[in-house]
Amino acid sequence: MADSMHAYRSHTCAALTKSNVGETVRLAGWVHRVRDHGGVLFIDLRDHYGVTQVIADGDSPVFAALEKVRSEWCIRIDGNVLARDESLVNKNLPTGEIEVFIRDLEVLGTSEELPLMVFGDQEYPEETRLKYRFLDLRREQMQENMKLRSDVVMSMRKRMWDLNFREYQTPIITASSPEGARDFLVPSRLHPGKFYALPQAPQQFKQLMMVAGFDKYFQIAPCFRDEDPRADRSPTDFYQLDMEMSFVEQQDVFDTIAPVLAGVFEEFGGGRKVDAPNEWPQISYKDAALKYGTDKPDLRNPIEMQVVSEHFAGSGFAIFAKLLEQEGTQIRAIPAPTGGSRKFCDRMNKFAQQEGLPGMGYIFWRDQGEGIEAAGPLAKNIGPERTEAIRQQLGLGVGDAAFFLGGKPKSFEKVAGKARDVIGEELGLIDKDRFAFAWIVDFPIYEQDEETGKIDFEHNPFSMPQGGMDALLGDPLEVKGFQYDLACNGYELVSGAVRNHKPEIMFKAFEIAGYGEDEVRKRFGALVNAFQYGAPPHAGCAAGVDRIVMLLADQQNIREVVMFPMNQRAEDLMMNAPSDPTSDQLMELGLRVIPQD
Amino acid sequence: MADSMHAYRSHTCAALTKSNVGETVRLAGWVHRVRDHGGVLFIDLRDHYGVTQVIADGDSPVFAALEKVRSEWCIRIDGNVLARDESLVNKNLPTGEIEVFIRDLEVLGTSEELPLMVFGDQEYPEETRLKYRFLDLRREQMQENMKLRSDVVMSMRKRMWDLNFREYQTPIITASSPEGARDFLVPSRLHPGKFYALPQAPQQFKQLMMVAGFDKYFQIAPCFRDEDPRADRSPTDFYQLDMEMSFVEQQDVFDTIAPVLAGVFEEFGGGRKVDAPNEWPQISYKDAALKYGTDKPDLRNPIEMQVVSEHFAGSGFAIFAKLLEQEGTQIRAIPAPTGGSRKFCDRMNKFAQQEGLPGMGYIFWRDQGEGIEAAGPLAKNIGPERTEAIRQQLGLGVGDAAFFLGGKPKSFEKVAGKARDVIGEELGLIDKDRFAFAWIVDFPIYEQDEETGKIDFEHNPFSMPQGGMDALLGDPLEVKGFQYDLACNGYELVSGAVRNHKPEIMFKAFEIAGYGEDEVRKRFGALVNAFQYGAPPHAGCAAGVDRIVMLLADQQNIREVVMFPMNQRAEDLMMNAPSDPTSDQLMELGLRVIPQD
Repeated sequence: MADSMHAYRSHTCAALTKSNVGETVRLAGWVHRVRDHGGVLFIDLRDHYGVTQVIADGDSPVFAALEKVRSEWCIRIDGNVLARDESLVNKNLPTGEIEVFIRDLEVLGTSEELPLMVFGDQEYPEETRLKYRFLDLRREQMQENMKLRSDVVMSMRKRMWDLNFREYQTPIITASSPEGARDFLVPSRLHPGKFYALPQAPQQFKQLMMVAGFDKYFQIAPCFRDEDPRADRSPTDFYQLDMEMSFVEQQDVFDTIAPVLAGVFEEFGGGRKVDAPNEWPQISYKDAALKYGTDKPDLRNPIEMQVVSEHFAGSGFAIFAKLLEQEGTQIRAIPAPTGGSRKFCDRMNKFAQQEGLPGMGYIFWRDQGEGIEAAGPLAKNIGPERTEAIRQQLGLGVGDAAFFLGGKPKSFEKVAGKARDVIGEELGLIDKDRFAFAWIVDFPIYEQDEETGKIDFEHNPFSMPQGGMDALLGDPLEVKGFQYDLACNGYELVSGAVRNHKPEIMFKAFEIAGYGEDEVRKRFGALVNAFQYGAPPHAGCAAGVDRIVMLLADQQNIREVVMFPMNQRAEDLMMNAPSDPTSDQLMELGLRVIPQD
Repeated sequence: MADSMHAYRSHTCAALTKSNVGETVRLAGWVHRVRDHGGVLFIDLRDHYGVTQVIADGDSPVFAALEKVRSEWCIRIDGNVLARDESLVNKNLPTGEIEVFIRDLEVLGTSEELPLMVFGDQEYPEETRLKYRFLDLRREQMQENMKLRSDVVMSMRKRMWDLNFREYQTPIITASSPEGARDFLVPSRLHPGKFYALPQAPQQFKQLMMVAGFDKYFQIAPCFRDEDPRADRSPTDFYQLDMEMSFVEQQDVFDTIAPVLAGVFEEFGGGRKVDAPNEWPQISYKDAALKYGTDKPDLRNPIEMQVVSEHFAGSGFAIFAKLLEQEGTQIRAIPAPTGGSRKFCDRMNKFAQQEGLPGMGYIFWRDQGEGIEAAGPLAKNIGPERTEAIRQQLGLGVGDAAFFLGGKPKSFEKVAGKARDVIGEELGLIDKDRFAFAWIVDFPIYEQDEETGKIDFEHNPFSMPQGGMDALLGDPLEVKGFQYDLACNGYELVSGAVRNHKPEIMFKAFEIAGYGEDEVRKRFGALVNAFQYGAPPHAGCAAGVDRIVMLLADQQNIREVVMFPMNQRAEDLMMNAPSDPTSDQLMELGLRVIPQD
């Protein structure tokens, strides 16, 4: 056929329209589906861009060869573009007005029997999908997820550049970064017995860049944490939109990154509502715990918990009344609008029991034709006055319910948060077509171990304490940091801080947590050293790329938005990793494997 | 001062001009230089963007505090913008028309005595520069290099997107990839005794993506090779612009990547001439060896070597005449236009001796008033007729010279290539303001070990042999691959190939090199497996990002264009890597360090 044609294709499988009718074309792609309609073969030929129907009958010189073609063979065909009969036009397909009559065929790659089908929606076990990832990725949903990921990352980049940030790459084979999680280590060959580490995050490097005067840094940064896998976290490497700025305060970071993220969610959210960044609430860590039972609240859920201790103190509900006599205890209510049925309340009570609590007391309000009435065992115990006061505080009415949890907040807060989620979900209170954001601020710098009484860092030791040195001279447990998270729909998307750039404040902060100056110099030598040579105030944050794409793609598992993910046991089944080293490799590294039982 | 002002700055240090005169401003940055002109302090205040002159005298309320300020302190000042006296305007500075009279001062970070100066051009030992990289990076040249690198990478990305490539990230903690260099290994904690590896390149993953139908992939990809360091190579991680395309041939890859690279060189080459991509010659590996003595020729150098054996066969120059009686020997000439002096020729002869050869014979042509005359011992030995024939073949004349090397080409080709470089350099034949590109093509697939006679892969085992299966049935040493490099100014910038996507050809290719099917399946399991499920023809390449930036920045060492590089012993002196692991870490990984002598 036409000699001037490209060896493999004149058009992609998404390109041909009515305007090409009569042309001789060359297409290449995969056999998506074959149908044999009595002497006429219909093949959906698929490539990355789309699908084109190609056909043949006995008039085609390659009909016999075509009859051998099977699903997922990679082929090249030459043919003539024909207009489809009006009744056969497929309006769902960009190429739906035409078909191509095949005149020549080249088989580029045959296929063995398929361990999973590309065509259709059949579900396969994860092990099969990961082992044959190269087939799994041919499926439409996976192609879309990966394209989305690629587009999201580029959009983040463009938006950061538009704000005059530059992307700088930081080392990957580097030093151990004691930041909370476990490091992956890399043995050194030139220095046997010594190890590099892969960075848990470019935290120290980005701070060093600020000291070096780079002013505005970002990076789509690979990060490495040797953590036990879960659905929203990769067991090995993952990506962050990492950024840092000099000469700024906390609000400057918010004002910078919020529009970037809102923009990305607007661009790729498929029309779902995105809260305007200037309206994202700033909720203190303490209030978040109280109202939502978590520091990553789902604000699509309108339920806010409240303290209702006063209504139970000295009341006829002995369990709560007694509890409140102990120091540090509270009773909190979870309002449940429209949840006012005994059946629903009992189910939620059972949920709390499954989560390890004795249960959740409840009140629900009904109208038995005689006006509003509070029902449930709790209401009887505390009497109508207190019940009514609770109802008014919570702003509930007929058909609503409220659940109650008591004790030291730390003992029930987490379950309360979960109950809030479940109640919101079951009552249909959650707007699924919305991305709801909230800054969580004022994290405490320190926490106290309940048993040992020892003070340690609650989060990141690099954050600037609010109030600076003065604050560190008071009660450490009262010290808040310029440290913040961004929550979206119940996920933590961003984490960051204003950094502690003053060596004397840094040493004092570590001293409170029991680390001497020598220890600090040893563990964070580069940073401490750098801060002694004119360090600027700086702040930044990091946003989880994989998690953002997961939310945008409406997926529950991070592996759906990663090209070649590990399985839950941190194995790559396709590449066969990890695997046994050769004895030469171990020798070169000066290592011996300790035999396992 | 003004309450509504930002905490740290109202303007950057590059922003103020005459139009700001009279305004109250706030600046933050580093003390670049302080001059005390008898009661008047002049400070050059520097940030990432520029320098502003700020001044104070006894009228300033903070004069006493300012007198304590030293180089590289980080400070914030408030002040009034004043117009400079016409005679004091600095036209080299965007802010040269103004100065700021200081009214308030905040010291943001003081500095210890400096181990290296930011101001000025003093050279420091590499160890000092790397240990205090955060100071080294404050120097103007380093700021420029890093900005350039960032801009180059973004430009590459934009150009690839404009060609409808998408960027996809491939795993970093993965399987060993036997591609020639040594892998970095990562011990697994969940599978003690087993190891992951860091990818030498995303080669296998990008091919798997092609099998998965992604059609056009690129990535600014971190690559890891445990190689001994040298000036143009990082000892640990480095970056490639990695790309792959489906349904293409070799020329398609050239037509795609050449404009991208040419564009980058045009954009950032600072006006240096960039050869037009459609004029980049395609030189066979064999011709490159002959003409340039290397597969990464510097085409800015016009010298092309030639075979001149016929003129020496049976001549009076016994050494060459005898040599030519042995099989596989040749005499090659290096023309040296304008090199026609005994002094120059003797120096080049000495150069060859330093490189381990017996020497280089030479002829040079002069005019002693009696027409052209060939001089040098060689000319006498072979006589005027042969000498004249050589001159005519090489196109030389009065004032020129030619050097001669003989033997089996492999024994002298490398030195010949070096001699060509030195001759071109010394004679000023090299246009320094030019980027000269050449595709090197037709690499042999196999090479033969001279001693054992064993056939092995010359380069990458994944390349498609020219002529496919048929070619593999003939003499393996005659088989060329669809494999290519791009040379620029003597550096290899790009390497790539059309891949061998047919399992049967792949197995045959490995069989010739002595690898059985089992071995191939074991070493390249994922690829071989994938190729059995409808693999498309595909091809690609990878361009060295660090090396490209190095060329553009006109630097000789890759460490000048890497933010935080390792030293030559693969150590990070600032971060203290590699370092001793803790015994807990080793225990968790199931490893023991073998004590070294």
